[in-house]
Amino acid sequence: MTRKLYSLCGEDGIRHYSPHVWKIIMALEHKGLEYSLTPVSFEDISEIEDGSYSSVPVLRDGETVLGESYDIARYLDETYPEAPALFDGKGAMALTRFVESYCKTVLHPSLATIAVMDMHNLMSPDDQVYFRTARERRFGMSLEEMAKGADRERAALPDKLAPIRDLLTHQAWVSGATPAYADYTLFGTLQWCNVCSPNTLFTKDDTVSSWFDRCLDLYDGVGRNPARSS
Amino acid sequence: MTRKLYSLCGEDGIRHYSPHVWKIIMALEHKGLEYSLTPVSFEDISEIEDGSYSSVPVLRDGETVLGESYDIARYLDETYPEAPALFDGKGAMALTRFVESYCKTVLHPSLATIAVMDMHNLMSPDDQVYFRTARERRFGMSLEEMAKGADRERAALPDKLAPIRDLLTHQAWVSGATPAYADYTLFGTLQWCNVCSPNTLFTKDDTVSSWFDRCLDLYDGVGRNPARSS
Repeated sequence: MTRKLYSLCGEDGIRHYSPHVWKIIMALEHKGLEYSLTPVSFEDISEIEDGSYSSVPVLRDGETVLGESYDIARYLDETYPEAPALFDGKGAMALTRFVESYCKTVLHPSLATIAVMDMHNLMSPDDQVYFRTARERRFGMSLEEMAKGADRERAALPDKLAPIRDLLTHQAWVSGATPAYADYTLFGTLQWCNVCSPNTLFTKDDTVSSWFDRCLDLYDGVGRNPARSS
Repeated sequence: MTRKLYSLCGEDGIRHYSPHVWKIIMALEHKGLEYSLTPVSFEDISEIEDGSYSSVPVLRDGETVLGESYDIARYLDETYPEAPALFDGKGAMALTRFVESYCKTVLHPSLATIAVMDMHNLMSPDDQVYFRTARERRFGMSLEEMAKGADRERAALPDKLAPIRDLLTHQAWVSGATPAYADYTLFGTLQWCNVCSPNTLFTKDDTVSSWFDRCLDLYDGVGRNPARSS
């Protein structure tokens, strides 16, 4: 296997929880490309390949190594044009960026708060120290203080998902009639919280929840098995 | 001229302020298609063409008459494929819907509050009665009560525009390297408030404000002249 995806894992070395890695897991499955997952801890990231990476995913594909989920998705479409497209045209490439910007600016802050303690608790002791130090510096408060906002953020989430809920009244998938990278962008973002804090994301019967369930079913239910060793 | 766009106007019969009409004004300009604007009041809408419409825009194009801005944009691309495309591919058609859903669920409620009294004040007396009755029923409060939320909504707007601001760090236009219908969808939404309550939308030096200015410059500055008689 020459295709290797470096993926942030919990202390067990098999629980994959990075939102951006999940985008690429789904992208590789979508394109039907084989790959193996190489678990890394926060500490390991600086030692991936040539040591120039500060985040995951990183993909090695034969002699090519690259990072940044969106760039990897673009690379996969360019390199494997015969496999199903992740972007249905150039316009979709640009507009998928808007889904990414929405996930980053609207959803990430809420999900980071909702999942903060569960995420911390699944890490190795060394990653816990790294994570605590980095987050507490960034947010100017302890993780425990941050976690006090979890109920508030969980209550705000349905409103924050309103644009997706409205979109899904028009079409079955974010990308249109069939799922593509815009779906995986949103899915990865939510899957992060779903892996760390299972069953806390949605209230029942939400349109977005049923879309998320359909995403979990894709590709032999790969999203339903976040704990895997390869 | 066989191409006629019905457009909601103020009492002066020349101030065009409907967000959805603005989307189609920009779409027609983008495609280089000639058109005339037919001003209508709220009262007039039920008498447009065969009387089956309850909102604007309505476009008559030769023998074809249709409503709903997104459907009109799709129609224009299908009917005039040789003119510049409003959607760069099928994927862009689907993802432009997400921009529309974001405008509808995130921005509209804020803008409706910010502009409510100015919008009311530019209408004819009959439209003022219609508008007041409809809005007060929908929101369960007087227009004046609603307007008290304007400062709060204006303060919330920069945060609500965060996904657009983030997107514009990657590309010059919402649609990518050049403007297209996703831009006009957002532009129309903001132009509504800009026409009703000029110079209140943005704080200075905002990335989104500079994008909006570039939209106003397009097509001989059509957006800078919201008061026009044809």
